[in-house]
Amino acid sequence: MKPGHFNNFFNANRERIISEWQEFLSIPSISADSLHNSDCIRCAAWLARQLERLGFKVELLSTPGKPVVYGSRPGKGSTSVLYYGHYDVQPVDPIDLWSSPPFSPVIRNGRMYARGAEDNKGQSWYFIKALEAVIATVGLDVPVKVLLEGEEECGSKGILACASSWKDKLKADILMVCDTEQVAPRVPTITMGLRGLVYLTARLGGLKRDLHSGMHGGVVKNPALELARLLATLHNADGSIAVKGYYDEVKEIDLADRALANAFNLEDQPYKEEIGAAPVGGEPKFSAVERRGFRPTIEVNGIHSGYGGPGTKTIIPAVAEVKLTSRLVEGQDPAKCLGMLVDHLKNHAPTSLQLDITEQGVGGPALLVSSKSKVIQRAKQVLENLAGREAAFTWTGGSIPVVSSLAQISEAEPLLVGFGLEEDAIHAPNESFSLEQFEQGFNYVCAFLSSLSSGSTT
Amino acid sequence: MKPGHFNNFFNANRERIISEWQEFLSIPSISADSLHNSDCIRCAAWLARQLERLGFKVELLSTPGKPVVYGSRPGKGSTSVLYYGHYDVQPVDPIDLWSSPPFSPVIRNGRMYARGAEDNKGQSWYFIKALEAVIATVGLDVPVKVLLEGEEECGSKGILACASSWKDKLKADILMVCDTEQVAPRVPTITMGLRGLVYLTARLGGLKRDLHSGMHGGVVKNPALELARLLATLHNADGSIAVKGYYDEVKEIDLADRALANAFNLEDQPYKEEIGAAPVGGEPKFSAVERRGFRPTIEVNGIHSGYGGPGTKTIIPAVAEVKLTSRLVEGQDPAKCLGMLVDHLKNHAPTSLQLDITEQGVGGPALLVSSKSKVIQRAKQVLENLAGREAAFTWTGGSIPVVSSLAQISEAEPLLVGFGLEEDAIHAPNESFSLEQFEQGFNYVCAFLSSLSSGSTT
Repeated sequence: MKPGHFNNFFNANRERIISEWQEFLSIPSISADSLHNSDCIRCAAWLARQLERLGFKVELLSTPGKPVVYGSRPGKGSTSVLYYGHYDVQPVDPIDLWSSPPFSPVIRNGRMYARGAEDNKGQSWYFIKALEAVIATVGLDVPVKVLLEGEEECGSKGILACASSWKDKLKADILMVCDTEQVAPRVPTITMGLRGLVYLTARLGGLKRDLHSGMHGGVVKNPALELARLLATLHNADGSIAVKGYYDEVKEIDLADRALANAFNLEDQPYKEEIGAAPVGGEPKFSAVERRGFRPTIEVNGIHSGYGGPGTKTIIPAVAEVKLTSRLVEGQDPAKCLGMLVDHLKNHAPTSLQLDITEQGVGGPALLVSSKSKVIQRAKQVLENLAGREAAFTWTGGSIPVVSSLAQISEAEPLLVGFGLEEDAIHAPNESFSLEQFEQGFNYVCAFLSSLSSGSTT
Repeated sequence: MKPGHFNNFFNANRERIISEWQEFLSIPSISADSLHNSDCIRCAAWLARQLERLGFKVELLSTPGKPVVYGSRPGKGSTSVLYYGHYDVQPVDPIDLWSSPPFSPVIRNGRMYARGAEDNKGQSWYFIKALEAVIATVGLDVPVKVLLEGEEECGSKGILACASSWKDKLKADILMVCDTEQVAPRVPTITMGLRGLVYLTARLGGLKRDLHSGMHGGVVKNPALELARLLATLHNADGSIAVKGYYDEVKEIDLADRALANAFNLEDQPYKEEIGAAPVGGEPKFSAVERRGFRPTIEVNGIHSGYGGPGTKTIIPAVAEVKLTSRLVEGQDPAKCLGMLVDHLKNHAPTSLQLDITEQGVGGPALLVSSKSKVIQRAKQVLENLAGREAAFTWTGGSIPVVSSLAQISEAEPLLVGFGLEEDAIHAPNESFSLEQFEQGFNYVCAFLSSLSSGSTT
């Protein structure tokens, strides 16, 4: 590895790299808003040209939704890479809170301010510019495929519908993703796990109308109270999930993973100061990071029934509705878990009321990468060489369903390394990404890709 | 008793009675809407003139809200009567659903259509016209006091604030109220009990914002789920209330009351057809009418937290709010019960979250009339003589807090007999009251008052 080459390249091309990045950021590719549909297509076409300039053979793959940018560049190396990123961005509301217009990217105090500055245009742009740097300096014989979708911020429906038909196109050894965060500034971080996700909406009702709580109180079952009682059956007193069979496929936490995770455990006091409550949810026999990374949950996302205004309204509400999500871990089959959850609700609901389960769905399975994997060990070494400090391993508890699917279809080992920070305010007004974070990401991709070159001694 | 006199009087004066009733109904005395404040005062003044014509000494008593009409007429009889009614009416929304304007009373198919036609202008008007009939025919030596308030439909705050300072004015032997319903058409009905009421709003939160359900799920306690679990602690598996001490003052149901109540039990199938669910709430060891009349309840009137729109939002809601009411029975002290309920919630809420209890209040104690009371037995006989069939006793489960208070202050025995029916659609569009129901009420009041006369042989 010759990091000096990449630094030189970056410094010599800094202005152009930044101005191209700003061009990318100025396209308002908001996927959730159909008024921006043509902006999304324009953004995909712009990316296609950028990859073509680097010698990629590029296609815009059609999906039921936005097009997916797919570029491939052959190479003689034995280890191939598939990069996944997304060119769409979140909506910009509340627009009044932005200090500068979200699609007029500007640098202030060393940070690029724009919607997508980090998520995911910034992180994808340092990947693409790192490709350019390696090609232009030491040369790149690693076969690389780049996949950039346009619906990540609204569910990845298009890519999820089509990816299994692109099996040959996606086949690779390593699936690189740069869409995650560091545990703290300048601490190189590898994300080792994502949780799976299933969701449903349940309505308990059957009453023809809201009833007078005096004339009917004690006579008929109260849907709001009964829904609360039903939700209370989902967990045992020890915080574990009470749904029959839910843990059957959950594995013991690997001892090495457990030690790595606990090295960055959440401390009670700082957590409480930031969040407002101590990290004492879930199963107390596991630490907070263990619960987040390796244990399933069932969460209430919303519950609504009856009167919510000022004062009192003496009714028995006709219906009560709850939205539930369950995060799943390695080994759990989402469709099976969803079925068990639905069965539990049906078996525990009072028979005199009517239970309707709607909007149920599967967001994807969990993803767990072994810390013993050679790809992870290689990335760790590359990151530690660059940063001069130990890398962190993190299990964030979130879900990126498309990554689990792409890992399965491509048969590649996932490698999730990102340089985001809490302060980047992704999804919020005044999203930003510092040039320092950008350069850290650029250096990592250059070093990792060149470590895979056949001539590399790593 | 000479019912012939009263029938003759009614028939001879029918047109005038109806036209005065329509004059009463045409005043839009909506108490909840301050735009109708002067209409309420106009209505009170109109009633004062009506009572003065019958020889009453009338005052308009000031309260913090609408004035209360108070009239008294002395008499030599040993048993005195206090009548309670209200001249205010419910709002008229949705106005589009009315077949004729709510304050332009008209008779169609033998029914008077107008807001207040039954509740409570209709039922109070037959009381006043019965007074007139008794005075004009057989003469009335019963001392009578009439109390008509103008805020029953919005909480009776004015009268509740002042009534204890009117102790001398209110003192009587019998408190007559005509603001209730019959169990079925033409079945004379005595309402034997009202339940007490306490209420509160509880908020469980402490999180600084909605949290990502992946990054925080299993780490921190979920306020919406924990509120559901808290509500589930309020009842035992057998349907009884689990709040410590809640039943300490609840009495065994009197055997005679129990038999009378069960004579009009709710049948499963008709109830289910009307309401949508079978009458299987509360404690199964009591019948539906026993649960409604003689057992306390804790009901959820509303619960709100987090996301309620279409699809999924993967959040842990920052806060969850519930509105609770508890109906109380004879013997239970409302303030004490509210205290026990608050303590229960505090003792069972998770300590890592914050519980705030707001808007707590006492709506009044329960009222239970003994079926052995001489007043009740007298009314029963009067009603059965008129109807030629057995009277029903009912415990409706509702609360009229002002009646409990007036009974205490006046030291009078309450007598709740009304001629309303479900089909009258009180509080709804096209409220109505049939002339037949009106005349049943008129005949009852005439017969009951004259039965109290010193010359009566009853």
